[in-house]
Amino acid sequence: MNEMPYKTYLSENELPRAWYNVRADMSEKPAPMLNPKTLKPVTTEELEKVFCRECVKQELDDTTRYIEIPGKVRDFYRMYRPSPLIRAYFLERALGTPAKIFYKFEGNNTSGSHKLNSAIAQAYYAKEEGLEGVTTETGAGQWGTALSMASAFFGLKCSVFMVKCSYEQKPFRREVMRTYGADVTPSPSMETEVGRRINAEHPGTTGSLGCAISEAVEAAVSRPGTKYLLGSVLNQVCLHQSIIGLETSAALKKLGVEPDVIIGCAGGGSNLAGLIAPFMGERLRGGNACRFVAVEPSSCPSLTRGRYAYDYCDTGKVCPLQKMYTLGSGFMPSASHAGGLRYHGMSSTLSALLDQGYIEAMSVSQTEIFEAATLFARTEGTLPAPESAHAIKAAISEALRCKREGRSENIVFGLTGTGYFDMFAYGRYNDGKMEDYIPTDEEIAKGLAGLPNM
Amino acid sequence: MNEMPYKTYLSENELPRAWYNVRADMSEKPAPMLNPKTLKPVTTEELEKVFCRECVKQELDDTTRYIEIPGKVRDFYRMYRPSPLIRAYFLERALGTPAKIFYKFEGNNTSGSHKLNSAIAQAYYAKEEGLEGVTTETGAGQWGTALSMASAFFGLKCSVFMVKCSYEQKPFRREVMRTYGADVTPSPSMETEVGRRINAEHPGTTGSLGCAISEAVEAAVSRPGTKYLLGSVLNQVCLHQSIIGLETSAALKKLGVEPDVIIGCAGGGSNLAGLIAPFMGERLRGGNACRFVAVEPSSCPSLTRGRYAYDYCDTGKVCPLQKMYTLGSGFMPSASHAGGLRYHGMSSTLSALLDQGYIEAMSVSQTEIFEAATLFARTEGTLPAPESAHAIKAAISEALRCKREGRSENIVFGLTGTGYFDMFAYGRYNDGKMEDYIPTDEEIAKGLAGLPNM
Repeated sequence: MNEMPYKTYLSENELPRAWYNVRADMSEKPAPMLNPKTLKPVTTEELEKVFCRECVKQELDDTTRYIEIPGKVRDFYRMYRPSPLIRAYFLERALGTPAKIFYKFEGNNTSGSHKLNSAIAQAYYAKEEGLEGVTTETGAGQWGTALSMASAFFGLKCSVFMVKCSYEQKPFRREVMRTYGADVTPSPSMETEVGRRINAEHPGTTGSLGCAISEAVEAAVSRPGTKYLLGSVLNQVCLHQSIIGLETSAALKKLGVEPDVIIGCAGGGSNLAGLIAPFMGERLRGGNACRFVAVEPSSCPSLTRGRYAYDYCDTGKVCPLQKMYTLGSGFMPSASHAGGLRYHGMSSTLSALLDQGYIEAMSVSQTEIFEAATLFARTEGTLPAPESAHAIKAAISEALRCKREGRSENIVFGLTGTGYFDMFAYGRYNDGKMEDYIPTDEEIAKGLAGLPNM
Repeated sequence: MNEMPYKTYLSENELPRAWYNVRADMSEKPAPMLNPKTLKPVTTEELEKVFCRECVKQELDDTTRYIEIPGKVRDFYRMYRPSPLIRAYFLERALGTPAKIFYKFEGNNTSGSHKLNSAIAQAYYAKEEGLEGVTTETGAGQWGTALSMASAFFGLKCSVFMVKCSYEQKPFRREVMRTYGADVTPSPSMETEVGRRINAEHPGTTGSLGCAISEAVEAAVSRPGTKYLLGSVLNQVCLHQSIIGLETSAALKKLGVEPDVIIGCAGGGSNLAGLIAPFMGERLRGGNACRFVAVEPSSCPSLTRGRYAYDYCDTGKVCPLQKMYTLGSGFMPSASHAGGLRYHGMSSTLSALLDQGYIEAMSVSQTEIFEAATLFARTEGTLPAPESAHAIKAAISEALRCKREGRSENIVFGLTGTGYFDMFAYGRYNDGKMEDYIPTDEEIAKGLAGLPNM
């Protein structure tokens, strides 16, 4: 049918040996994390109470360009990596576009997403530190599944606080985590102080990621031999996820393709940061003119309607503050919001890059993204996660723009995962019962009013 | 970690150009299909009333060794094939076995199994024949999903009769099919004559594959421009599935590995027949001494407790008779039986090969297979389908035998798919509520008493 292969796989020998730290190439570094009590930059010692030592080191390191991937992590990566870079021939044909569309597919593993890339690294460091267990939160369930898998692999006990509405809509996600030996608690729960407080203040709440984070952190510091791991937002996570971009870059080079635009969905930012990392590095060093597009849900629009300011990373305000695009740590997306991408803030590195003009941001509604997801499933075969469908929607828009303009651009997007555990939401869409919810200006203002005064 | 790669991928250029027809190499051919009314070998004309023309040709052709894969089918294959052959390093380590374990993984596509290999071929032939729609049945849901995807790709209307207990246990499977545009009806339904009859005779029945087949065939012949497609058992399906074995053979040759034993789960037989096809061909031509092992559930034990005899392919007795290992077309597995592999009979080709002594058969209980599945998930990462876990269980037994005997054999098994839609069953296992059901001798005898007298 075509000369260029449909799927481009690197060999296992070509698996990157080091992660790439984009902060090393930023002349204006992201603002430092602050201690929520002292409002001074957090110290290594403070962070090590919650996070693993090696992760803290990575979190605070904004000068080392490449950080070696440990051998045991690379061995695990070989089970599902390098992941394929796919030429979307059938989608191109359906759209009648002269553009070439490529997607980096991270869904071919049981966690169903890119989250496993960081989960296995963090679980490895926890094991090396001699810990017995880890705690975390999960929204849509992908990160929780990934960490359950990684914990099972290294024999760590894993406790997951799962945002309540996801817990209820996705009983089978929960069951996958249990199969990997994790225990799963709907959040806000009555098992932590912060959970009991949030339940009292917001009776009947279906939870939020910021609230589940608070619970998981509290559980970690109150249990011996246990630390907390986070699946997005943090610099360490963006670092681990750079493997997505490094592989994408190597595969595109093999094909002789220069990307014109790279598109990723953005919730906490781990996928987008990882996908664009090496391309952004080149750009920061003056090497390319590629566009970078972040796509977020219009129901949780931190990049497009939030403020670039210091804010708490969690609803309970026990975590450090970060300077980031945020809707306020009390912001909770409507219960009608399906899928992930429901975090009130955004990676501080991505936020800085957006603020510095290197990234464009846009938001799309959920009926639009399910429409794009269905087209994609029927043409390209893979049923995408709703999160990934944000990037699909934007890629389709770019491809149609190319069609109007008669331009044969190279569009690259991240297909972060599969939607096999999102069929409740697909069902609502198939039944014509899916609703869009866009926060009013008053609701946005209310969230922003909760930002700390500083 | 190791010299041999974890995953061996063939390139898209190495994708087989023809399917392999093992019957061409059998000196004793499988017995012919019989017309249920005349009890004489079915004719092309008779079969074409139900099946697509090209499929009928393939069904009856037991002399052509290689049949070309149409270009459009190969294009579709490129979306998810060649599938990886994986060296189970982590499972080997967990078992402490000197054996080398390999598995051919067919789960990296949205249907979640090997079924797509035949679905796309059959949908292509239906489209080429100018049909508007197709009907079929599905048990665990993998075939129905596969055919929904294939039908969406070619713009065919797709109607799926889904065994009622699966329909109820797997609402999300149904939703995937709907997302691909299919309509899904629980079987036995009140929409067909045969469904109404079976509902009347067995009030409250949770259905069987044989019964869903009868309904789908009736729906096909009563609707204009519509024919019936079947996902297993038939020669044409085994032919299409030979791509699994052809790729496996090519990958093993690249690695310089000669298999000592090849293991596949067996329900209707499509996966096993496809996986072993080229190896069996070599054996039939005197070329190897590889063992072939069929693994079936002890709750539906056609190969190990059935009879090799002519029987109806469906409960409603509207389909042709095949000579096969069968439990009788009225046999219904216990409602406690999870997953697929619930067909009363078996591919006539595999049945003949078993009868001729080329294949070994064994049965395993469902608690055993979920135990094996959990170990596999935690070591190799992938959460397997319960069907596939039958092969895993047998592969583990072989690997432990090798350990006892100090032998470093090469064990190859088929990992037919993923278990993401089987979490209801996993949940029962995780909760310690899964039960084994092994039919009594009386129940087996009752089923066999229903065999036609001939």
